[in-house]
Amino acid sequence: MTADTHTLETLDTPAALIDLPRMQHNIARMQHRMNALGVKFRPHVKTTKCLDVVRAQMAAGAQGITVSTLKEAEAFFAAGIQDILYAVGIVATKLPRAMALRKRGCDLKLVVDNAEAAHAVVDHARVHGEHCEVWIEVDTDGHRSGITPEQDALLEVGRILKDGGIDVGGVMTHAGSSYDLSDRAALAALAEQERAGCVRAAQRLREAGVPCAAVSVGSTPTALATEHLEGVTEVRAGVYVFFDLVMHNVGVCALEEIALSVLTTVIGHQPDKGWVIVDAGWMAMSRDRGTAKQSQDFGYGQPCTLDGTPLDGLMLIGANQEHGILAASDGSVQDDLVARFPVGTKLRVLPNHACATGAQFPEYQAVSSRGMVQTWGRFHGW
Amino acid sequence: MTADTHTLETLDTPAALIDLPRMQHNIARMQHRMNALGVKFRPHVKTTKCLDVVRAQMAAGAQGITVSTLKEAEAFFAAGIQDILYAVGIVATKLPRAMALRKRGCDLKLVVDNAEAAHAVVDHARVHGEHCEVWIEVDTDGHRSGITPEQDALLEVGRILKDGGIDVGGVMTHAGSSYDLSDRAALAALAEQERAGCVRAAQRLREAGVPCAAVSVGSTPTALATEHLEGVTEVRAGVYVFFDLVMHNVGVCALEEIALSVLTTVIGHQPDKGWVIVDAGWMAMSRDRGTAKQSQDFGYGQPCTLDGTPLDGLMLIGANQEHGILAASDGSVQDDLVARFPVGTKLRVLPNHACATGAQFPEYQAVSSRGMVQTWGRFHGW
Repeated sequence: MTADTHTLETLDTPAALIDLPRMQHNIARMQHRMNALGVKFRPHVKTTKCLDVVRAQMAAGAQGITVSTLKEAEAFFAAGIQDILYAVGIVATKLPRAMALRKRGCDLKLVVDNAEAAHAVVDHARVHGEHCEVWIEVDTDGHRSGITPEQDALLEVGRILKDGGIDVGGVMTHAGSSYDLSDRAALAALAEQERAGCVRAAQRLREAGVPCAAVSVGSTPTALATEHLEGVTEVRAGVYVFFDLVMHNVGVCALEEIALSVLTTVIGHQPDKGWVIVDAGWMAMSRDRGTAKQSQDFGYGQPCTLDGTPLDGLMLIGANQEHGILAASDGSVQDDLVARFPVGTKLRVLPNHACATGAQFPEYQAVSSRGMVQTWGRFHGW
Repeated sequence: MTADTHTLETLDTPAALIDLPRMQHNIARMQHRMNALGVKFRPHVKTTKCLDVVRAQMAAGAQGITVSTLKEAEAFFAAGIQDILYAVGIVATKLPRAMALRKRGCDLKLVVDNAEAAHAVVDHARVHGEHCEVWIEVDTDGHRSGITPEQDALLEVGRILKDGGIDVGGVMTHAGSSYDLSDRAALAALAEQERAGCVRAAQRLREAGVPCAAVSVGSTPTALATEHLEGVTEVRAGVYVFFDLVMHNVGVCALEEIALSVLTTVIGHQPDKGWVIVDAGWMAMSRDRGTAKQSQDFGYGQPCTLDGTPLDGLMLIGANQEHGILAASDGSVQDDLVARFPVGTKLRVLPNHACATGAQFPEYQAVSSRGMVQTWGRFHGW
């Protein structure tokens, strides 16, 4: 974090803005909900990779973090966070780096969903005389990785780990298919499917004599739609801290709750086409077009005025590397755009996907309610 | 550049690999072509943002570079390159940073395509007593920015600059719509349209008494398809240095000429679905799905064996942030994928768009013909 040196008027563009009041609102909303549901909350820091944001999440009551890369684990452990779940399946070649973190005192939990990986962990721990905690990934919606709750492989993997002297810490699942929904009842049903499946997997492991203390579920939509979490010990979610246009279409946030935007400057026009050219291209917005298959397609982003008010009827209809094309969403040629947005005008653009857009920037510009700006660094790479 | 410390077997994944023999072949191919056509070649370094790659381009005969951000201009000038074209329209707020580079001795050329920006440059130069060179952007295919060759605005902008004491160095155009083509004759026709339009703009400026020494054209497809370049002084191209699956579909490279790939490790399977889960998700591949609208859709990328041989009939059919799903391209469930690609298997994946995929990584791993690996840094941000 650096001292205040900029306002929105003096920042170079493009820049990734965090609206701090919105971010704090989003953090409080999720934490209050998890407190009411009686579970621990373990935010997924892959969305921001930013120590300042994660400190705000911890200050609000988060317990431990979830990471998607060992680089995140290393960076956040160096900053003093010990309880870290590395939520991507481990393989033998990554064990030396992961175990080095544990040897330095990090309470790092690894994840497996297959016998080969379980054997690799057992072998590594035995050969090096090391202790290790592993959680088993459960598949509750068929969208990616994990073992389904009733599969024989669940108990096989549990036994390989237990018999190999590994501490089986729990089960975890992620109902990522929730991103494809947009109906409250369907989200609540998927949240219940995610909960019930993960609890069932834990029950089967325990009945087979494999300890399974943690039952970890979550995605931003299911965390915000679930009606109860019986048997669950903790929830994970990432994008809720910023939200984005995809989450807006899913129905879990208002446009006015989206805390991440890209500050951009108008650099030219094509009046005959009704185009305003801005300096936020795909390098700034990312190539994520998650809203293309949803109820409302926002193109490469929703333009807003400098104070964050959405400009209805306009969107980024196209993007090259460092050029964005702002125009009418309905394809019409609006005659007044040159006059409304002269060269030099600054705008904010809400992104399709906050995780992808944030990753395009080496740092965020955190904007306070009084319009003061602090630069917050973020990680990049693996 | 660091000393050789890794081979493909010891690299952490995901990693961005440059196949050095392929890269050198691509550099030589373009440079020989430009030499034969009798024009200067000014590579666009936005593709790689990597000093080691640009040194190889300069060593082969490139004269000057094109950049898409002032950060690139600053970094490459610091490394000793003076002749730099900043090919994105300038605005008033960016002039102090640009002019600071000129004051330090950088032969930086700015670009404008409208009267407001031209006035801003004139005013800035006058107030600060500074000299500045500006090129005028010409629109030859309607895909983005620029003034069309016959528009009155071309001469208006030229006169504003000239009368304001600015050195009008030339005209430049980029036929980016060439990315939408896939037919040799159509590419040659667009290359001629790009050439003729830019030459015509230069002619009109000169007839109006505005000097216009440089006539700069280019995109990778038109540069490789053009039949003659009469009246043109230089060509710009970027992605040719690596190529990618989009360029393969455009028809200007073979799969075996693509020099950038993502090294990935198999981390699991979903045998019932015929899925192999790898650790190259969209954070590694980027969200660029440029081939989705082309003749062959490669999903999130074309998997290859570790030696770079394409695995026919397979592709990355889906991607989450740190998970990629490798499966049959035709949607069939192949029973043998678990046995062919056990957990821990390393593969290379060819990307849709080299500019977007490279930007996901803090560094490249440059692989020699003998399989030795050097780490090459790259820039990030603005």
